[in-house]
Amino acid sequence: MPTYTPPLRDMQFVMHEVLNVVDELTSIPRHADIDADTLNAVLEEGGKFASEVIQPINLSGDSEGCVLDKTTHEVKAPAGFKDAYAKYVEGGWAALSCDPEYGGQGLPFVVNQCVYEMLNGANQAWTMYPGLSHGAYEALHAHGTDEQKKKYLPKLTSGEWTGTMCLTEPHCGTDLGLLRTKAEPQADGTYKITGNKIFISAGEHDMAPNILHLVLARLPDAPKGSKGISLFLVPKFHVNDDCSLGARNPIFCTGLEHKMGIHGNATAQLSLDGAVGTLVGEPNKGLPAMFVMMNAARLGVGNQSLGLTEVAYQNALAYAKERLQMRSLSGTKAKDKEADPIIVHPDVRKMLLTAKAYAEGGRAMSIYTAMLLDKALYHPDEKVRKDSEEVVGLLTPIIKAFLTDNGFAATNHAMQVFGGHGYIHETGMEQFVRDARINMIYEGTNTVQSLDLLGRKILGNQGATLKKFGKQIEALIAEEGVNEKMSEFINPLAYLADQMTKFTTEIGFKGFVNADEVGGASVDYLRVAGHLVFGYFFARMASVALKKQAEGSTNPFYTAKLQTARFYFARLFPETASLMRTARSGVANLLETDEALA
Amino acid sequence: MPTYTPPLRDMQFVMHEVLNVVDELTSIPRHADIDADTLNAVLEEGGKFASEVIQPINLSGDSEGCVLDKTTHEVKAPAGFKDAYAKYVEGGWAALSCDPEYGGQGLPFVVNQCVYEMLNGANQAWTMYPGLSHGAYEALHAHGTDEQKKKYLPKLTSGEWTGTMCLTEPHCGTDLGLLRTKAEPQADGTYKITGNKIFISAGEHDMAPNILHLVLARLPDAPKGSKGISLFLVPKFHVNDDCSLGARNPIFCTGLEHKMGIHGNATAQLSLDGAVGTLVGEPNKGLPAMFVMMNAARLGVGNQSLGLTEVAYQNALAYAKERLQMRSLSGTKAKDKEADPIIVHPDVRKMLLTAKAYAEGGRAMSIYTAMLLDKALYHPDEKVRKDSEEVVGLLTPIIKAFLTDNGFAATNHAMQVFGGHGYIHETGMEQFVRDARINMIYEGTNTVQSLDLLGRKILGNQGATLKKFGKQIEALIAEEGVNEKMSEFINPLAYLADQMTKFTTEIGFKGFVNADEVGGASVDYLRVAGHLVFGYFFARMASVALKKQAEGSTNPFYTAKLQTARFYFARLFPETASLMRTARSGVANLLETDEALA
Repeated sequence: MPTYTPPLRDMQFVMHEVLNVVDELTSIPRHADIDADTLNAVLEEGGKFASEVIQPINLSGDSEGCVLDKTTHEVKAPAGFKDAYAKYVEGGWAALSCDPEYGGQGLPFVVNQCVYEMLNGANQAWTMYPGLSHGAYEALHAHGTDEQKKKYLPKLTSGEWTGTMCLTEPHCGTDLGLLRTKAEPQADGTYKITGNKIFISAGEHDMAPNILHLVLARLPDAPKGSKGISLFLVPKFHVNDDCSLGARNPIFCTGLEHKMGIHGNATAQLSLDGAVGTLVGEPNKGLPAMFVMMNAARLGVGNQSLGLTEVAYQNALAYAKERLQMRSLSGTKAKDKEADPIIVHPDVRKMLLTAKAYAEGGRAMSIYTAMLLDKALYHPDEKVRKDSEEVVGLLTPIIKAFLTDNGFAATNHAMQVFGGHGYIHETGMEQFVRDARINMIYEGTNTVQSLDLLGRKILGNQGATLKKFGKQIEALIAEEGVNEKMSEFINPLAYLADQMTKFTTEIGFKGFVNADEVGGASVDYLRVAGHLVFGYFFARMASVALKKQAEGSTNPFYTAKLQTARFYFARLFPETASLMRTARSGVANLLETDEALA
Repeated sequence: MPTYTPPLRDMQFVMHEVLNVVDELTSIPRHADIDADTLNAVLEEGGKFASEVIQPINLSGDSEGCVLDKTTHEVKAPAGFKDAYAKYVEGGWAALSCDPEYGGQGLPFVVNQCVYEMLNGANQAWTMYPGLSHGAYEALHAHGTDEQKKKYLPKLTSGEWTGTMCLTEPHCGTDLGLLRTKAEPQADGTYKITGNKIFISAGEHDMAPNILHLVLARLPDAPKGSKGISLFLVPKFHVNDDCSLGARNPIFCTGLEHKMGIHGNATAQLSLDGAVGTLVGEPNKGLPAMFVMMNAARLGVGNQSLGLTEVAYQNALAYAKERLQMRSLSGTKAKDKEADPIIVHPDVRKMLLTAKAYAEGGRAMSIYTAMLLDKALYHPDEKVRKDSEEVVGLLTPIIKAFLTDNGFAATNHAMQVFGGHGYIHETGMEQFVRDARINMIYEGTNTVQSLDLLGRKILGNQGATLKKFGKQIEALIAEEGVNEKMSEFINPLAYLADQMTKFTTEIGFKGFVNADEVGGASVDYLRVAGHLVFGYFFARMASVALKKQAEGSTNPFYTAKLQTARFYFARLFPETASLMRTARSGVANLLETDEALA
């Protein structure tokens, strides 16, 4: 069975040594009293919860899955899930970054980010229950009426009740404009909602007494398409004014999907038959309201793959040191053993280092983005808020797509290190692969992310946001460009940064003539952008490590950071050479293929 | 549920229009009377068997899996598997390319290759039962005593009995030198074999009355390591002189693995407790004897992924034409529908074309290799036999690793086209991914293949075999170099062929100084070599299509071939640019990482 060690030291490195999050966060009045010890202590406890409470039920949850009782429409989560959730609520983990007005602890989002990385590394399927609840919290917090907030937010903050996002219908996933679920206004100001939803994660379960469904539906006279969608809050049980539970609302689970992975999470088909809901936000503006939740969810999905990358790496590393098989090509290394541990083989190291670099680059990028999110929400300076929000918008599709593609590659590499044993359920490695696979699909496929990045976030404002982020890269290059020890990291980064401007302009021009050119280049473009961001953070991490060494540190931790950065630039970053070539090949080789795709 | 259409026209194109297999094969006396109609007719029937008999039980076989009765040690294959196998035997499919001396039909291996591609596309888990049996047939045919052949080959030829390869033990997979199973010589010339084997595909089942296990074990005074391994034939039931079944031999299934995919195939733990076997080949020379089987198996594994690539592509293509979601970026295409079919989106086409190109390149390469195998076995000219065998040896690790890596990418792309629906079991797309995943691991991991290719097959004879294959590329370049219409295909191929020589020499020199350099470059090197071979076949296929068009053909089939070749060179082949860069980065960035991998 796999094990999981919370990567606390690595998180501290990023937070305190690379990003100086305490200095950055204390400039926000709300977080003025944050200090490093508090952050570290919370993460240490969060790590314990992840590794001791939910990690041990990850593999069994996968074997067991969720079970629907077709007569009662109730779903039983796998053994241990409910108890673990009770401990989560009891520990106050749901309230971590929530608003103190509703019982939250008001901690920065950076903390939430790190805790969720660990929860996901320990058990993605379980973590989706609180994850979706937190998304519902955010949507209600941003768009709910005062009455809704007062009634529901305390229970979402404490975690006593959970939440869902009910978007997808059988005929519409990416294209929510097609959705058909109807909402009929009632005399009392409520709505009766009727329709069928599918793929509803955490859609029904026995872990909490009530579930708050956020449901997209159409009002009777709504415009067609995506401008006619409204958002409704539909509780599983009605809630009385004293917050006690009332009657069952007719929103029933009619089926659970049998799927490739995340078996411990109930992916529900929900049937609404005149279920009573209240409107969240304005009529016909459900999609923008839902996007509050969706953007958070996209960062959350990247975080799921980050967690899986780390845990898969840890287990593959341990196995590679232990498993004896063949001798090193350059001569026996373990003379006292009947074979060498497989970590002596260069390609085994390459697979391990790939996963490690993806984890470390992903962690730096995610914590950085979380810090920007804290600024975007509560920084006193409006310009800082706006700029931060813009860069978060730029990085969100990259985190979602780049980190989940990387996570799938990383979990596959880690599984491959196990050889045949990796294909067997009991080692847990193939579960990481199956769980990681959904992350490339849900909350907007990775293709959709790439269109969001290139079409909207970059070309949408003539590259202004990209330039904003590019200024930081320029500053780093200016600062470190003369440092000879940094040249192996700075040179490729500077080269790519330079190329990126031309590359973007070129696609922009082509897209201006034919919009399909954007769609033909966007997926490759996103990976190049991902490497630009990773390259920047790896250079920053290397810079910190070199400074520590210059100050006399002989701590192998910093040597490790340099080795990983070196590996990253030598073995992963060069992918950009091919990606730019294929992205530049033009869309004709895709579109003029009607005979090939007949 | 997925469907499968045998790709007969594509096979005919490769066989008759690109490779001229009939001319090539009729130069072999044994196959002198082969003609195109016969080949096509056999494949048509084979395609029917695949699509009508075993494809319908693929998804259900995955859901159901194999069940072990722990008291009787008997295994039940999924519903329908036994009946389908009876039809396979009845149809004479097992005997296709077997020796007429033992009841075989003596057809060329090319036929077997194509039939197996279709069987694998229809149902990989089922096809492993006859596939392993055929491997056992080949090992016995090459190394068995006359008595063994007479007794066992007719039953393997007819398929009445099945076979296995028993190599792996819990502590040894890649490194068979570590194996511990013991063989004690008996007074009557037989051996009593004791030990534990794991991961034995098709290791126990109810589809045939007897199973012939080929077991690697050590004689009492065997040298240590891989030079002390012998091969034994251990039947499940002893066989009397009249070929009737005798007593049960104590080789029992003690467990079945729960694994990521190929659920329909029983992956058995086998316990041998003094099971009686007979020696196959010479004492202590079991490994070379087993390699007859292993090389065939490696081609077979590439073929499994080829089959999966094709079937996944077919289903994703159908879905992309049907599923309505969003509008084309360049304006509405299906005005009469509420959304455009997703095939209008460039990236959806890219995913489809990637799978298609991998299927078509893989098919050309595999049929070509099968044709060489026919020559290697039975061509009257010894030099042709030797040259063919050498090139088969070169292409075998490429087929195994390149086609299985491509197959994993292709099945994942096809699944991604389905969006969330691809993650659900009932569409069958995620099964293709799970089944395809094992192919990168078993019969020697893809890393092992890359070391076999670069270390043994290429550097092992100073690139002589590679040059042999390179001569064909040179000939094509010389022939088509002046043809302007071919330049888009010939130029990149010629460039890579030129680079390849330098690239190989460079790694050879580095490897001479430090053998680990080979291990640090081999995986990337193999993919570059794969593209060199694919590039060669895509150029040949494009050349055929252009000739047909020049002759006045307006058949869209040839237009499709040109589009696919164009896509391949524009979007897939450029991967070589990055691969050569990373392969050249040197092994230090992998080996000087002890702190990073602490």
